[in-house]
Amino acid sequence: MDGVNESQTLLALMNDLKLDWLFLSAPDTVAYATGLVQPIETGASPFVGGPTLAVLGRDGSLGVVGPDTCRPSQPASIFSFPSFYWAESLDVDQLYDAAVRGLVQEMGIGGRIGYERRSLPAAVAAAVKNSDWVPADQAIAQARCIKSPREIACLTRSAQAAARGQEAALLHSVPDRSELSVFATVRCAMEEFAGERVPVAGDYLSGIARTSKAAGWPNGRIIADGDPIICDLAPRVDGYWGDSCGSFAVGAASPLFRRLFLASQEALATALEIMRPGLAINELDSRLRAVVDRRGFAYPHHSGHSIGTSVHEWPRIVPYETALLREGMVLMVEPSAYDQDGGGARLEWMVLVERDGCRPLAPFEHRVER
Amino acid sequence: MDGVNESQTLLALMNDLKLDWLFLSAPDTVAYATGLVQPIETGASPFVGGPTLAVLGRDGSLGVVGPDTCRPSQPASIFSFPSFYWAESLDVDQLYDAAVRGLVQEMGIGGRIGYERRSLPAAVAAAVKNSDWVPADQAIAQARCIKSPREIACLTRSAQAAARGQEAALLHSVPDRSELSVFATVRCAMEEFAGERVPVAGDYLSGIARTSKAAGWPNGRIIADGDPIICDLAPRVDGYWGDSCGSFAVGAASPLFRRLFLASQEALATALEIMRPGLAINELDSRLRAVVDRRGFAYPHHSGHSIGTSVHEWPRIVPYETALLREGMVLMVEPSAYDQDGGGARLEWMVLVERDGCRPLAPFEHRVER
Repeated sequence: MDGVNESQTLLALMNDLKLDWLFLSAPDTVAYATGLVQPIETGASPFVGGPTLAVLGRDGSLGVVGPDTCRPSQPASIFSFPSFYWAESLDVDQLYDAAVRGLVQEMGIGGRIGYERRSLPAAVAAAVKNSDWVPADQAIAQARCIKSPREIACLTRSAQAAARGQEAALLHSVPDRSELSVFATVRCAMEEFAGERVPVAGDYLSGIARTSKAAGWPNGRIIADGDPIICDLAPRVDGYWGDSCGSFAVGAASPLFRRLFLASQEALATALEIMRPGLAINELDSRLRAVVDRRGFAYPHHSGHSIGTSVHEWPRIVPYETALLREGMVLMVEPSAYDQDGGGARLEWMVLVERDGCRPLAPFEHRVER
Repeated sequence: MDGVNESQTLLALMNDLKLDWLFLSAPDTVAYATGLVQPIETGASPFVGGPTLAVLGRDGSLGVVGPDTCRPSQPASIFSFPSFYWAESLDVDQLYDAAVRGLVQEMGIGGRIGYERRSLPAAVAAAVKNSDWVPADQAIAQARCIKSPREIACLTRSAQAAARGQEAALLHSVPDRSELSVFATVRCAMEEFAGERVPVAGDYLSGIARTSKAAGWPNGRIIADGDPIICDLAPRVDGYWGDSCGSFAVGAASPLFRRLFLASQEALATALEIMRPGLAINELDSRLRAVVDRRGFAYPHHSGHSIGTSVHEWPRIVPYETALLREGMVLMVEPSAYDQDGGGARLEWMVLVERDGCRPLAPFEHRVER
């Protein structure tokens, strides 16, 4: 994989689709193409008139439309506007439009243009005349599946952040604390690792009823002795997401919860044995489900997914995915077992597919009891 | 204000602009129109093909395009798609497109359509043929400035959440803790109040150098005895934002920091004395700056802003805003004082404009020393 970077990947995609230009408008694709990481925890800023755009030309030129605080790590022509003006009456929509017009004129945008159909604002599309707009969402998603060495280093750091969170969850999930209180401590461990605020996706669930449902954000429920816990932590660090899941009992595990845990653990171990380039993803999926099925359980969700500047990328480990594993993919693997009387157990690591097999990135300890 | 609700406000706007339909695509306007609150802390979901849409007809009909988990509080025709399917190979873009087509056909969309230019996807605009699209962003922003009794109740609860966070900040901002660690405790206090995860905007800054710069998210800096703190907390609870700021010294306040605090405190007290319907907003702005100026300081930002389903709404308290205060506005008021040798002090409450004056919503204590 050495020597291939994200710009080259996108330029090859543009060549395949015969694109003159590629307009990127979602935070994850902008980060992928430019290294520009946007805060997402509080939604879109009310101080800007539209999303940050990255525009790639087939000659390799890169233009960015964004607030004056944006600092792409790639060389780019930047068309910016004030991010938090106050002293003069300026219209944020006008400022944004002017920056888009500047980009269109100075870079000479026209011809056949790839775009992201979910996020390109209608107003931006209208600013480019006499052009042919081509949806590129799926092609971009597929192009991103092989991670560069730089990306693998970023994902390893995010995996380390997730591991810190998992260690904190084992230590602090104790009786008489609320789920929200434990989650605050866990998130703080990841934020201290990153040195900054960190967006966190995932789940934190306690008790048989909640863990048996597989997914949900923490609430005010008070943890009790013997509760099963599912702690699924996906922190974004420097633009790349980590993901992870641990499951354990607070105090003594019930025999049934122990069986759920062991089913998930055996399936995850199976994944590490069999994942290598050339294995069909639906074959991987069915092998993992078979392990859990032999132990008498099942899971009502995917077996995993790719990850990068989006927490969930293509490919997904599901029964209908016929693509083959390839060297340089980074996949979440999360076989699980749920039972309405026993709760749920889901164990998840990040796994890098290597030339002759695979290895987990920053694996953390899975324990059936804390 | 009794009897006017958000739907009536939007219908009046549509009548003024002669719109047949109004397409809302930003999370804050969708929440305003429908009561449908979307999680925003982790960015756009990778499992949906586009933003949740609310579509209002001039006859009062309401249509919603969104995932099958969406539950608007207003009666609506819902065009939904699976939010987290896995068992079949379905294309999220196709699912979203089909829902949009269903809405366009069943509701008979056409004619003159208002839209939000920052957020309406180009792909949605393309799905409606032979229509005249009219940007409605600014008209919507202005229509939202008067809060209904229901909204004032929501904003009061958000103000209470912010007040809980400010109490926690006073209690837990102690030497030898990191900013991130204190912030985790403070955010948890707000989340325990709400019973769920809460998006939080604002600032947490410690020390003279950082507080003198006015704004920034917490980092790994360790708090020291005597440090000034700026804690600006804006939590979103049930779709409505609260906002607040406290400033205090950890231990003994320096004479200079005490002067900064008193300047901000006097200006905030002035605001509560003079705010009433009919006062021009630029007059309010200049009166607050004059108080701080008389004490030898200044602040390089707005004096405040409106708030609702967006953390920052129109109007803004700035020198160029000539609109008048009106009964039912809820405004953040945040006069401040900064000095590179003394740090910064910013005190902020949420203020409701009433018939004969104003009152703060859920005010919390401002103290110069913790």
